[in-house]
Parts: sequence; C-alpha cells; structure tokens
Amino acid sequence: ADKAHRIKAVFCTQNETATGVTSDVAGCRAALDATNHPALLFVDGVSSIGSIDFRQEEWRVDCAVSGSQKGFMLPAGLGFLSVSKKALAASRVATHRRCYFSFEDMIRANDTGYFPYTPATQLLRGLRASLDLIAEEGLENIFARHHRLAEGVRKAVDAWGLKLCAKAPQWHSDTVSAILVPEGIDSAEIVKRAYRTYQTSLGGGLNKVAGKVFRIGHLGWLNEVMVLASLSAAELTLLDCGVELAPGSGVGAAIEHFRRTAAMPVAEAA
Amino acid sequence: ADKAHRIKAVFCTQNETATGVTSDVAGCRAALDATNHPALLFVDGVSSIGSIDFRQEEWRVDCAVSGSQKGFMLPAGLGFLSVSKKALAASRVATHRRCYFSFEDMIRANDTGYFPYTPATQLLRGLRASLDLIAEEGLENIFARHHRLAEGVRKAVDAWGLKLCAKAPQWHSDTVSAILVPEGIDSAEIVKRAYRTYQTSLGGGLNKVAGKVFRIGHLGWLNEVMVLASLSAAELTLLDCGVELAPGSGVGAAIEHFRRTAAMPVAEAA
Amino acid sequence: ADKAHRIKAVFCTQNETATGVTSDVAGCRAALDATNHPALLFVDGVSSIGSIDFRQEEWRVDCAVSGSQKGFMLPAGLGFLSVSKKALAASRVATHRRCYFSFEDMIRANDTGYFPYTPATQLLRGLRASLDLIAEEGLENIFARHHRLAEGVRKAVDAWGLKLCAKAPQWHSDTVSAILVPEGIDSAEIVKRAYRTYQTSLGGGLNKVAGKVFRIGHLGWLNEVMVLASLSAAELTLLDCGVELAPGSGVGAAIEHFRRTAAMPVAEAA
Amino acid sequence: ADKAHRIKAVFCTQNETATGVTSDVAGCRAALDATNHPALLFVDGVSSIGSIDFRQEEWRVDCAVSGSQKGFMLPAGLGFLSVSKKALAASRVATHRRCYFSFEDMIRANDTGYFPYTPATQLLRGLRASLDLIAEEGLENIFARHHRLAEGVRKAVDAWGLKLCAKAPQWHSDTVSAILVPEGIDSAEIVKRAYRTYQTSLGGGLNKVAGKVFRIGHLGWLNEVMVLASLSAAELTLLDCGVELAPGSGVGAAIEHFRRTAAMPVAEAA
Repeated sequence: ADKAHRIKAVFCTQNETATGVTSDVAGCRAALDATNHPALLFVDGVSSIGSIDFRQEEWRVDCAVSGSQKGFMLPAGLGFLSVSKKALAASRVATHRRCYFSFEDMIRANDTGYFPYTPATQLLRGLRASLDLIAEEGLENIFARHHRLAEGVRKAVDAWGLKLCAKAPQWHSDTVSAILVPEGIDSAEIVKRAYRTYQTSLGGGLNKVAGKVFRIGHLGWLNEVMVLASLSAAELTLLDCGVELAPGSGVGAAIEHFRRTAAMPVAEAA
Repeated sequence: ADKAHRIKAVFCTQNETATGVTSDVAGCRAALDATNHPALLFVDGVSSIGSIDFRQEEWRVDCAVSGSQKGFMLPAGLGFLSVSKKALAASRVATHRRCYFSFEDMIRANDTGYFPYTPATQLLRGLRASLDLIAEEGLENIFARHHRLAEGVRKAVDAWGLKLCAKAPQWHSDTVSAILVPEGIDSAEIVKRAYRTYQTSLGGGLNKVAGKVFRIGHLGWLNEVMVLASLSAAELTLLDCGVELAPGSGVGAAIEHFRRTAAMPVAEAA
Repeated sequence: ADKAHRIKAVFCTQNETATGVTSDVAGCRAALDATNHPALLFVDGVSSIGSIDFRQEEWRVDCAVSGSQKGFMLPAGLGFLSVSKKALAASRVATHRRCYFSFEDMIRANDTGYFPYTPATQLLRGLRASLDLIAEEGLENIFARHHRLAEGVRKAVDAWGLKLCAKAPQWHSDTVSAILVPEGIDSAEIVKRAYRTYQTSLGGGLNKVAGKVFRIGHLGWLNEVMVLASLSAAELTLLDCGVELAPGSGVGAAIEHFRRTAAMPVAEAA
Repeated sequence: ADKAHRIKAVFCTQNETATGVTSDVAGCRAALDATNHPALLFVDGVSSIGSIDFRQEEWRVDCAVSGSQKGFMLPAGLGFLSVSKKALAASRVATHRRCYFSFEDMIRANDTGYFPYTPATQLLRGLRASLDLIAEEGLENIFARHHRLAEGVRKAVDAWGLKLCAKAPQWHSDTVSAILVPEGIDSAEIVKRAYRTYQTSLGGGLNKVAGKVFRIGHLGWLNEVMVLASLSAAELTLLDCGVELAPGSGVGAAIEHFRRTAAMPVAEAA
C-alpha cells in the first residue's frame, strides 16, 4: 500500500544476529521497484558485510551500516556507513536536529586524510590489516568459506536432532546459527555452563527467544578446526545440561561435510 | 654390574617427548639404593616437571633439568637446573674444562638478584606469571587435569582403532601421545597436511619412529575443548590421508570420558 | 540576564584542548547560584577529568562527559557520561527525538552487568587496569604530578622566549600547552617536521589558531623524562624551522624546575 | 713472540660493552698476517655487529659471535655464530669434549630449514622483522646514524665537564658510552636513582670500573629524541647526586651537534 509515499525509508537487516536469519535485500529492492516507491533503502549489515554477499550498487542500497567486530575481525569500536547520493541529498534537507555526526563534516575532513573528531587510530590500523587479509583471500572465496563452514554447523545440528531458529534454508545465516533447545531446557544455562566450565563463549537467546536458543557464531578468521572446537564444546555442554545426543555425532557430521567439500575450492582456486 | 662403581652418573628421561613414554624415576632411585651405588642421578624433566609428579628431594635426584617451553607455558628460551649438594660438590672437583656456565658464578650472583650473564628478562617476567598460574591451580590439581585430558586422548586413539607407541599403560605419558599410523601411511604426510590444510601443529616422529608416529601434545594451559579441537583436526587429517575411521568416533570417545570424570575434581575441590 | 529562564543548560569546557585553557567550573556554578538560575550545568571534561581537579557533586554538575583517550590512558573509543538526578529527570521529559543512546536502557542493563548494545570489551578491561593505576597513585598525587610537569613545560616556554596561547596563569592548563610561534613561522610546518624528522607527535593549531600555535600534551602516564624528551624534540624542531632560541635552554629550565620541586611530593608522601 | 705458534686462537672484543671501548679488528688481522701467524681470529661482536662496521670476509675472522639483544633489536635469547672454513676444520679435529652444541648437527639440520634442538621460534620471527628493518635502512646508513647519535652523547659529556672511560677518540664506541663520574661520587647511586626516580635504565660500571662509570647505550632502533631523553634523564640524575653541571648543557650540546649534522646523511642518501 502506501500509495501516498509517506514511508520515507525501508529498513532491512541483512543478517539478524539474534536469530541467525538472513533476509533477501535484493528482494526488498525489487519490491520497492515493482511499486515505484521512492523510499530510501537502509540495510543493517553488521553481521553480514564482508562475510556474505552484499551488493550496495546493484541493489541500490541508500545507506548500509556495519561494524568492526564481525566480518572485519576487529574489536568493537568502529561503525561503518556507506551512503548513496540520494541519501546524502536527503540528509541535507532533513529537519531532524542532529548534535554530533555530520556527513558534511566527515566528507570534508576525509578528503584530507583527517577526521572531524578524535579517531580510533588503533582500530583504523587494525582495519588496514583486516582489509589486506580480505583482499588477499578474495571476497568470493570468503563467502564460499563461510557457507561451507556454516553448512558444517548445520549438519551437526541435524545430527544432534535439534532445529535452527531459522526455518527455511533460504533464511539460514552463514555467519551465525541460533539453535533451538528441547522443551524443558533453559538455553541460558547452556551458555553459562559453556563459559564457566569450558571457557567457551556461546551466544544466548535475546528478547523473544531468550531461554530458547543458543548461538554459535561462525564468521571472520575461521577454519574447520575452530568450528569443530565450537561443536565439541557445544556437545559437551548439551550433554552436561541433559540434552540427549550421541557424543561425537555433531562433530562427525561436520567432519564428513568438510571432507566431501574440501577439495572443491582449493582445486578451483588452483 | 659395575661393582667397581665406575659409573659416575645415571641419566633418566622422566618423559620422552618423541615417543610419549614416561619412565619410573623413583624406580631408578630404588635400584641405585638397592645396590648402594653412589652414582649421581640426573633427570631430564623437560616435558614432565610442572605437569606430572616429580619429587626431587624424595627421590634424591642430583640434577634435574627443565625448560620454559613445556609445562611452564612460555616460549623456548629458559633452561632450569636444580642440583643437589652432592652434585655441586662433584662439580667443584670435576676436571672437565668448562667455558661458559658455572654454578659458582650463578649462585653468587643470584643471591643479589642478578645474573652473571645477560638474562632473558622478558622470559623471567613470563615465568613469574606462569608460576602464579601454577600456584593458583595447585600442583595436585594440575597433575589430575593432565591425567584426565591425556586419558581423553587415549580413549580417542582406541576409538580410531590405533595404538600408542608406548605399549604398557604405566608408560603412557600424560603430556604427549605418540600415535602409530597404519602400515602404508607416512606419518610425515599427516603432520604436513594438518599444518598446511588445517593450520594445526601435530608433532612428527623422530629418529627410529620417523614416518611411523604422529604426536599430540597435551600439557600446560589446556582444557577439554582444546583437546577436542586437536582430536578433530587429527580425525580430519587422518581421513584425508586414507586412514579408515568413523568420523567423530575419537572426539565422541573423549567427550564420554570427560563427562564421566568431569564431576570428580570439581566436587572434591568444593 | 535571562530572567525568564529560557536557557535550559549552560555548557562549560573545563579544559580546552585546542588552546590549553582551563575554565573555572566552580565559578560557573557560583554564577548560576547567584542568580538562582535553574539551568542544567554541563561540563566537557574530556581532557581534564582524572588529570586535574573536578568535583561533580560539590559543583553540582548535571552532566559531565569524558573519554578514554586522555587522563584514562586508553585508546580512543569509550565515552563516559555522569549525570545528576536532575539531568535524568530532564531527559525523561525531553521531547527531542533520540535514536540510539538511552539512559533508561543503559541503567537497566548496567545493573545486571550487561550493556544494551555491543560493548567495547577490550577497552573496558583496559579501563579496569587504568582505574587501578589511578587508585594506586591517588587523585591528589596525580593532580600534583600533572601540575608539576606542566610547570616544567611552562618554564621551558619562558626560556625559549615564547608565549602560551592561554594568557593569565589561572587559565594555564595542566594537561596541554598551546604555544604561540613567532610571526612569520607556520606552526603547521613545525608539527609536520617534528613528526617526519623526529617521529614526535606535537599537536597543531585548530580553527582560529591554525598555523599560530603548536601543542604539547602532558597528561596521563607521564614522568619528568617524557616531558624532557618532548621539550628536546620541540627545541630541535623549532631550531630547524628558524625559531631562534638557545639549544638546551628550555630543557634546562624544566630540569631546574623539576629539581627544585622534586623532593616535595615524595617527602610529603613519606 | 710465539714463534713456535703455540697460540691457537686470538680473541678480540670488537666493542667492549662495559667500558665503551672499540677495538681495531682489522689491526689484529694485520698483526697476525705480518708475522704469518696461523692462529684463528675470534671476534666478540655482541655489541657491534649490525651497528658498527664489521667485515668478516675482508678481515678473515674465523669465528664471530653476536646476540639478539643489541643491534638486532630483540630480547636476549638468540646467539649468532659465523665461522670460517678454517674454524670448521679446526672444530672437526679438536679433542675437547663437547656435550651440546655441534656445528655438524647444526649445518645438517639448517639445510632442511630445521634445528637439531628446540628453536626459539618467536625470536626467529622477530629476527626476520629486524633483518627487514636493517635491510630497508641499509648498513651504511645505520653505521652513520649510530656514529652521529654517539657523537651527540659525547658532545653532552664534554659539556658536562666529564670524561669517557675510553681515552682516545679512535676507541670511542658508537654503541655505548661509559662516563667517568667525579671523585667522591658513586656511580652505582646514579644508576639506582635514575631507575627508581626517573624510570630510566642507565648501565652501571662492572668489575674494575664498578662505582666509577655509568653507561648510556645508544644502539639499535634509536633516534635523536631518544638520545636527548637519555641525556635529560642523566642530567637530572647527576644533579640530584651532587654532580655540578649547568642544567640543559649536555642536551643543548647534543642538539647543536644534531642540527649541524642533520642535513648530511639525508642529503647524501637522496
């Protein structure tokens, strides 16, 4: 609806960290185009940009936001904004009072290599190193690696007899998996025990899924063994918390997946 | 045998890093005592001291040597020597020419907090931190933890259908396991592939067992998940190299062992 | 004036980083009290809190802001807000739309040890270490140390025959000195040369004083020798850039000041 | 003198760290050659190699030794040996019993990229970085920089009215200066006070010159400002310990030297 075009911007989270659900940004763009709707398209790419495919120009995303602490493999501290000319123009005529961040100030200073505010220099140097790592591996290879490792996690979840929070495969996130625990089990206990007993940080459920899911993050500088270590820690903890599963079943399923798919990217790269 | 007491010193390696074999130092002392033999008892404790039980006074060890890079959880660089009065006296009358290290110089300088040669200050500060960690956990707890984690590795080896280089259980090392590969497999290939493909450092076979064993170290600042990560990496690599085993079997066996034994030390500590 | 009390908040920068000017926050409070003005008192304490005396309760400051990168001796990245009940109450009824930071969310989460947004964990751990350092030295000692070191810098500036940007002594900042360069010299050249030739970061002049001042910061984890190193670098650079001064004059004046005042705090502490 | 050639090796310390005296290695070689003496020429280059000119091939040095903690800019821990074919041959027929280090073992393993003993991997990676820094600057530039910075220290010593332990200029070390303190002053007190009061590590006098000299090291990754900081710390401490000198005199003399000589190496390099 909104034939009067009162909606000024559509906001889309490409990858929802709390539930491990990936959304279809290209689909959002197509829907806006199909109705000739002039709304700006904003994308939260915090846990997707740099890890799964994102195409700001092709999808005409007007403002994309990301952060240093996910696919950019740095501590939390930097936010990234990438804006279209359309969004910049809208920002110039917007009447909402702003007190700190100004695109104008930022663009003017950036041209000279400076910042209008005190920059987080250490993180910027870290970002230089991260971008070098990313360029060296290549975005296509990074996306393929994330998909393969995420598939390993999903094979393990299947083997445990558990379900993901994200129902259909097209919504399965390649950067984080939120796993539903059986009735009667409190996922907060799983997270706490993994941390205290096995020094392993699993993610908890937030808001609506609090107590119902635990999460395994699988993005950034990550290989098969790190995934298998997380799965091992999850198996140990799930067993400790009373979830019935065959020890080694999840790890074994992931190993089988990794073996079946291992040769592919290497061979194609060569 | 040597009734003339021409043997001046007996040398015993408490834990043989290349083969994962633990020797009976107390037994060596008992054998010397049984024959009233005056030989000095020297012990190589590089991969044992701080990780498995060692009793210099009770066993009257005349010179024990260790290094920073194993149970002391530091980079290689420091060697430790602990000598008895009997060994110091022997050193004073020894006629072998020495050019560098002198117990006399070292003892004199150490009393003032200095060293007779340029000390590796950074490692000494690291040692301070290591010793604090060791004191906080307690040696008895450290020995129990090493034994439990090593048992997990041995359960995995059993589940894979493989054998340790150390045959009888009393020789099984709690700090490193050397695992025999099946006929026709070159263990050097396993070590190479683990490193190149999975960024995991397994140990190779040395000298007589070159090509025949690969090694998993399990000492120092180590928990269940780190052991399971190593076992996962080994499973992946063994499968890649043509060893037949059920994926997840070793990890699962270790998980079962950890679960069965987990409550014990915690409960006793409480 | 403002007898109608239309001004809702008075904003005071306790220490102006660009000019090295310290303001009288207690005086601002007194002026508000003298006229019974109900305005909120806001203080920018970025380059003052933790280094020079600040008394939020005594001066009834309604909102004080600081950052991790000055007296808290950390990388840039954390902002600190300390608000009065009066400011919180005002925030609750304020109608300005806000999109991110909410005192309510923050207070609710902080009680449980969590944050409503992804926290910069590394910096929080660093802050723990900084606060321990601060508590160990004691705020009074820290203020005295900053004053003594700043006086050393000011003695050097006198000896060079130069003037501070801050004219009267009561405005002299104990955390940063902005030094006026002679006519015909571009202070930006001084900053550039110090960095390129002597790997020393001096601050440049900003806005109105661009090209006219260079700045020496002197706060945080700092001792006499670090101040003398900065003064040495400044002398070398000033000479290179054509400023006439006697080599060693500034460093010598600072040394004399440090010697005359050295015994005092130590003796009193003992 | 030794016409029977009973002396098997001549040992020369290129740079004596305790006294700041540089010896003439080329002269030692010339003296041996002048008498056709077949003795091996051994050089201790711990505090010289990489910082001042050393030519093993031209001077036909049979064994040169250095360490990681001086010109190689690393923590203590690595020793370097560089031997001639003549020395290797002599080692093969030597009858002195050796228990640890063997050239044969080392050469055999090094060809494959391995070590016969546990290597200090972290330091080897550091060495890679150091050698890159050295190659980037160029040895000739490094030697010139060390000489210029050392001259700055010597100008300061002159300005203080003090003397170096090394009397004639040809013996002045470019990597460390040992400075004689006036009668009645204990140099150990100077070293202690610099460390405790100003957190600055000066070197003490060793053996014969204990109590009589203090030392300033000036080698490795070092620039003008670091030298001036050391000189400032020394001035402060000397004044505190009762040595009469004009504050700023040493620093000023060094600054004058650095200014007069600054353009030279840069201009020639360009």
